Amino acid sequence: MEKPMSVEARLNIVTLGVADLDVSRRFYVEGLGWRASSASQDKIVFIQLGGIVLALHPREMLAEDATVPADGSGFRGITLAHNVRDKADVAPILAHAEKAGGRIVKAAHDVYWGGHSGYFADPDGFLWEVAWNPYAAMNDKGELVLAE
Amino acid sequence: MEKPMSVEARLNIVTLGVADLDVSRRFYVEGLGWRASSASQDKIVFIQLGGIVLALHPREMLAEDATVPADGSGFRGITLAHNVRDKADVAPILAHAEKAGGRIVKAAHDVYWGGHSGYFADPDGFLWEVAWNPYAAMNDKGELVLAE
Repeated sequence: MEKPMSVEARLNIVTLGVADLDVSRRFYVEGLGWRASSASQDKIVFIQLGGIVLALHPREMLAEDATVPADGSGFRGITLAHNVRDKADVAPILAHAEKAGGRIVKAAHDVYWGGHSGYFADPDGFLWEVAWNPYAAMNDKGELVLAE
Repeated sequence: MEKPMSVEARLNIVTLGVADLDVSRRFYVEGLGWRASSASQDKIVFIQLGGIVLALHPREMLAEDATVPADGSGFRGITLAHNVRDKADVAPILAHAEKAGGRIVKAAHDVYWGGHSGYFADPDGFLWEVAWNPYAAMNDKGELVLAE
């Protein structure tokens, strides 16, 4: 009998396909202050974000690797979130991202369900939500821990 | 003097904007076998993936939350990766994702730098790479640990 299979619940890398790797590196590394791993290479930048890896890679190369056409426009249908422990941290992080070369898409504001958040776009338009959620438990490592 | 600021290196949530939440829930929860958190609600599904959260949310609502137009097409310029410990796991996981309602975009193959990988697309076309990388260290929790 075939062993019933389930895929381990794991997301290891999020790779952003970027127009200009130098611009993106400057934004994330010099701008936000995140550290590029020494595993980074000429055409790919790796950044350890806790238990996950953020990779920056030229958009055309990423499409080629996935064997899909590189054409695409408009809303990507995906957002990334950076959660914070204090409500007061949301606005300064958005401002910092703007100073680093990002764009504030939605200013920090109270959300109807009790949270506080805003969005910035990175140099390629990838959307990051900066969010404070008083109902989400965050562990010592800054990871959100959901109820089972 | 203003305190120099850097943003903590953290990615907490990846939210996929999906066309049909039921279809996506079936793919990830029933298909891949990942557990929906009880924190999930009518219009949002939360799945804990180690230290990160995958969220599924109707695409229009996600765009509205970010205050951007929902229109968009083609390559999203972003990929997600699920890394495995054994080379032999890549092909079965791709096959499993296909059976669950995904589409194999690139079959498992040896990569020139020594790895082995393939891609599947979820029901909305989000690209997942399933990858074995003999050079990437993976800890007990299945997290990739980069060289500093």
